[in-house]
Amino acid sequence: MRNVAICSYATSKFTKDSNLSVFDLACQPCIDILRENKILKSEIDAVLFSSCSPEQYGSNIICEMLGIRPRISHRIESLCNSGTNSIVSAYAYISSGLCDSALIVGAEKAKSPGSVLSWDVSRGLFTFPVFWAAIFAKAHMRKYGTTEEQMATVSVKNRTNALRNPNALFSKEEETITLNDVMQSRRIADPIKLLDCSCVCDGSSAILLLSEDKAKEVAVENPIWIKGIGQQISGASFNQASSDLTTIKASKIAAREAYTMSKTSPDHIDLVELHDAFTILQIVALEDLGFVQKGMGGKFVDRNEMVVVNPRGGILGCGHPIATTGLAQVAEMSAQLSEKAGLRQVKGCRTGLVHNLAAAGTSATVIILSN
Amino acid sequence: MRNVAICSYATSKFTKDSNLSVFDLACQPCIDILRENKILKSEIDAVLFSSCSPEQYGSNIICEMLGIRPRISHRIESLCNSGTNSIVSAYAYISSGLCDSALIVGAEKAKSPGSVLSWDVSRGLFTFPVFWAAIFAKAHMRKYGTTEEQMATVSVKNRTNALRNPNALFSKEEETITLNDVMQSRRIADPIKLLDCSCVCDGSSAILLLSEDKAKEVAVENPIWIKGIGQQISGASFNQASSDLTTIKASKIAAREAYTMSKTSPDHIDLVELHDAFTILQIVALEDLGFVQKGMGGKFVDRNEMVVVNPRGGILGCGHPIATTGLAQVAEMSAQLSEKAGLRQVKGCRTGLVHNLAAAGTSATVIILSN
Repeated sequence: MRNVAICSYATSKFTKDSNLSVFDLACQPCIDILRENKILKSEIDAVLFSSCSPEQYGSNIICEMLGIRPRISHRIESLCNSGTNSIVSAYAYISSGLCDSALIVGAEKAKSPGSVLSWDVSRGLFTFPVFWAAIFAKAHMRKYGTTEEQMATVSVKNRTNALRNPNALFSKEEETITLNDVMQSRRIADPIKLLDCSCVCDGSSAILLLSEDKAKEVAVENPIWIKGIGQQISGASFNQASSDLTTIKASKIAAREAYTMSKTSPDHIDLVELHDAFTILQIVALEDLGFVQKGMGGKFVDRNEMVVVNPRGGILGCGHPIATTGLAQVAEMSAQLSEKAGLRQVKGCRTGLVHNLAAAGTSATVIILSN
Repeated sequence: MRNVAICSYATSKFTKDSNLSVFDLACQPCIDILRENKILKSEIDAVLFSSCSPEQYGSNIICEMLGIRPRISHRIESLCNSGTNSIVSAYAYISSGLCDSALIVGAEKAKSPGSVLSWDVSRGLFTFPVFWAAIFAKAHMRKYGTTEEQMATVSVKNRTNALRNPNALFSKEEETITLNDVMQSRRIADPIKLLDCSCVCDGSSAILLLSEDKAKEVAVENPIWIKGIGQQISGASFNQASSDLTTIKASKIAAREAYTMSKTSPDHIDLVELHDAFTILQIVALEDLGFVQKGMGGKFVDRNEMVVVNPRGGILGCGHPIATTGLAQVAEMSAQLSEKAGLRQVKGCRTGLVHNLAAAGTSATVIILSN
């Protein structure tokens, strides 16, 4: 297996409605990457487009708009973890030797068809993701005494982090929220309130992956390395997510695999970008990824932190452009590990973990990166 | 790079309307493969779903329907060559060592959104593929004296081959066509007539890929090996397909790459499954893939053949379930190279080439297989 490096990354401003097409959105971070002139357009072997948008041949449309003629180009879709699926796929292309370079771009409109799970009859009429989030939250509260205030704390923390991220959906000072704001926000599906939920939005993010040799050839300074990959699916419908509703089985298996491949453990991780589409998911993920004992996620959120979580603001603070999210998480981790995260830079981080879920945790990706 | 073997394959009956959902269609060939008991469901590391269907999370839905819980699962879309893109992606997963096994399944409904190219403004109102086929045909006729009768011969030959393929859309004796039938069929876009065109239809096909070690472990007899891969895109819109409208540039580059990787040349190829969505494409492909000199494709169709072409009936005879086609081509080639192609078996073939285009030849895949 050849080593694979992240050599460039860019993320657009996330907005409620950008008035741009999904393709115009997709081009923005790609243009930012191409402007760095690390590699020529003619050196790009693969372009992978991560999106739930219904347009056909989107990856080639983006190539044409950018003036790139790669050998490989297609769209990848797996709902909310399309982004990390695309990165793992590009990793495979490079690691296998089929490619030396891959540009991966995620783009999504707020009105993406990915935001309703209409195919899942196990949900009955409860097709919106908030319903399963409520079931997870109730189960965790009942079994471990997790409180609504602990969940609300997740929202306050991530939204506060987002204030230091100019690309976040909620980046403005006047969008600051307090614990009281969360607790008093509209109840959507008990115990989940409006401010426990992330907001689907417009946004795009792109990553340039190179083989180790190519990275040396074009003299990339301090690339970030993909050290560990873990993926697991448990099904597609909510009733397949887990037999124990206080845990997401796919996350645990994916994390175990990624730790094994990277020869690390939770102790080695300085920073984590985890999938906080709802506040309860941050609590459950901290447990499933091995940062706290099962059941202690709620208390851990209250106290000090063993690991820095979601410095970019997470999905709660940044917004959730569905198939973009995994790429934006990896872009943030790359910025942090390169010491280029601006106001939100976490000092001295060496190893980071990205955790990306889809559809009630029926699938999970974990990627471990280091500098 | 690890060697990758095709260890099983299956294709459904192609029909104008199966009354099945795209997911039910997808499961059919997968069930056929699983029934062979070559590997357990729990041994399947990746499931890739090739389709233009608008449903989200389809790959995971298929996994759940089949009772498979792989590590990797997502959908791949690149219009008419989604199928071969999926095979190349699975090849990369296995070759890189990330997976030991991958089940790739293509499924499409006749009413797929992939059959109209509404995004391509370079086509003006001519959004149906038949318009660019007419332009290619006119150019070839003008430059090389190719005739409508030569094109019609392609249709007669492929439709005749389809009579020996029980899964073909046009498999019935009463569907036999003559040169006169093609010549007298309705003119759609001069010089293209109805019987010069393939028919978008319902259909599915699946392939099981294994690493060399896994194939040995589960004692697969006589696997087929993927020896060469070439891919190229030239853009997305028709005006990017080629500056010379008598050739498809992407095919030529993809073929050159695949020949280089497999250390073969056109002389080594016994059998070719090429992308005959329109009769003119077979003539152009024979030239672009190196089987005849440029301009001689029309005459070659009239005379004897240096290589056996489209024994399953091609796209003209089998029908064109868009994202399924590339998989069905590889399934046919695997059957032929395994001497399991029944009535249409080509004797003694050792090496075969699969050629799969998308959107006016703006992208091409070439895969070379051998036994």
